[in-house]
Amino acid sequence: MTLPPVDLAELASWRALIERALQEFVDDHCDVDGTRPPGRLRDAMAHALLGGGKRLRPLVCLSVAGVLGEGDDVSCALPAAVALELVHTYSLVHDDLPALDDDDLRRGRPTLHKAFDEATAVLAGDGLLTDAFAVLAGARHHAARQIEELARAAGSAGMVGGQHDDMRNEGRSLSSSEPSLREVHRRKTGRLFAAAAATGALAVDRLAVVDDARRFGQLLGFAFQVQDDVLDVEGDVEKSGKVRGRDQKHDKLTYVRTLGLAGAKALALQAGEEAAAAAVVVGEKAQRDPALLLRLARFAASRTH
Amino acid sequence: MTLPPVDLAELASWRALIERALQEFVDDHCDVDGTRPPGRLRDAMAHALLGGGKRLRPLVCLSVAGVLGEGDDVSCALPAAVALELVHTYSLVHDDLPALDDDDLRRGRPTLHKAFDEATAVLAGDGLLTDAFAVLAGARHHAARQIEELARAAGSAGMVGGQHDDMRNEGRSLSSSEPSLREVHRRKTGRLFAAAAATGALAVDRLAVVDDARRFGQLLGFAFQVQDDVLDVEGDVEKSGKVRGRDQKHDKLTYVRTLGLAGAKALALQAGEEAAAAAVVVGEKAQRDPALLLRLARFAASRTH
Repeated sequence: MTLPPVDLAELASWRALIERALQEFVDDHCDVDGTRPPGRLRDAMAHALLGGGKRLRPLVCLSVAGVLGEGDDVSCALPAAVALELVHTYSLVHDDLPALDDDDLRRGRPTLHKAFDEATAVLAGDGLLTDAFAVLAGARHHAARQIEELARAAGSAGMVGGQHDDMRNEGRSLSSSEPSLREVHRRKTGRLFAAAAATGALAVDRLAVVDDARRFGQLLGFAFQVQDDVLDVEGDVEKSGKVRGRDQKHDKLTYVRTLGLAGAKALALQAGEEAAAAAVVVGEKAQRDPALLLRLARFAASRTH
Repeated sequence: MTLPPVDLAELASWRALIERALQEFVDDHCDVDGTRPPGRLRDAMAHALLGGGKRLRPLVCLSVAGVLGEGDDVSCALPAAVALELVHTYSLVHDDLPALDDDDLRRGRPTLHKAFDEATAVLAGDGLLTDAFAVLAGARHHAARQIEELARAAGSAGMVGGQHDDMRNEGRSLSSSEPSLREVHRRKTGRLFAAAAATGALAVDRLAVVDDARRFGQLLGFAFQVQDDVLDVEGDVEKSGKVRGRDQKHDKLTYVRTLGLAGAKALALQAGEEAAAAAVVVGEKAQRDPALLLRLARFAASRTH
């Protein structure tokens, strides 16, 4: 099976919208009385947040909103898009800490605890996570439901639970561990992508397709994570700024370890097609053209960085 | 000025309500599809959450709801009460980490990173914080506004900002630093008490007094924190399970250091009376008897543990 090359150039204008909204968060976030964060803490959060990145979770959110909404204005999904990237960024900052993965580089730059210090990295991560919910509370449609989607996906039963189990899996390598590895990937990565798609649907008030959108995001996230396992072995270091071999260094349980490189590649493509099929269901239910969502699914599964 | 002895025995039934709700959170919290957190992570969260504590932030929230609401059913404020204690508990877990205060004991028991390990303490804190917003999203009245109150109060411009500045203040001791110390206490402690009172008003749909309730909570929180500085020097170790001299060990900038013990005690009482005056304003605006809120303010300022 050969897929056509897929890229996200078509989403450049939305990516610019996301970058602007993230910069606005850094510049404008304040307490209810207008008090700003301490300058040094804000600098630390900006270091982590504005250091590049594909912004794929916000793009999934805006894409679902774009496909399901009226007209081509996706601004009502921007609170969710920003909140998703804040949550994703906090999770990277805390994962990189000495007590967890102990990484020195992220996207080609020093990790936050290296650029500042460990205490500041803990607090900046806490700030990004908490502020995400202040941002999302300002959403126009179904703000509380969007918050519930994000908080359950990112919390102890979701992403944080996945990080916990991922850490406990380190050093294990049985191929019989596949169901548990799928569960870790589902929680650690899939759940945030699922929330991205679900909040996109809620943001444009399409309640009837929230469950289908969540399923699409979940499958896309799984494809993304399997391909992440692949790219850790053979990714484009120059484009990603990533260090290869990170999984091996941390003795992580990955699909490359359980299935081999070829097996993991095949699984990523299969997962991408399952996500594409879920996108078709979303399109049918909503009577919209899901082409953009299919391309996103295939990008997640076949990206080279 | 001598105040009558104040205690919170009258709130025993609400405290029992809060304990039950916290236990229910530990037993029942799940993802949107019913998935539970990993058992070990849940045990870690339970260790931190169910290890005692005065539950004063939830009690402030329920008390404001009780004073302002119809009838004596405060159950509509329970999501806020639970969320406040989750956020408070996460902040203790992260503060105790080796990179921050590096404390071994909390409420007479091993801190979470001692009872489990550092990575688990980071993740359990992250889980408690995130889950708080999932709980609060289920509030009956003004859920999104309650979430905004809590998230702005606890985030980078609020409590996390206060923790950051508190850490940066360590080792400083100038009495000319009083305005900055007031600002640290306002953020680090005051803001969460302010959110407790504001969410209590929102929970019973009393929008017109949210600002006054927030101000009451803010002042009560300040009184509480000044008295905390005092109790670190002369507190009842047996009742609190606390280690005395923690502030000195960490070379914290406190009111005992800037004003002396007698000066700090006088400031706590003065702050308590300012909070009591703010409670009177709440009562007048809402046409309710604020007596319970006055007692809470005086308890915060004169407690012995």
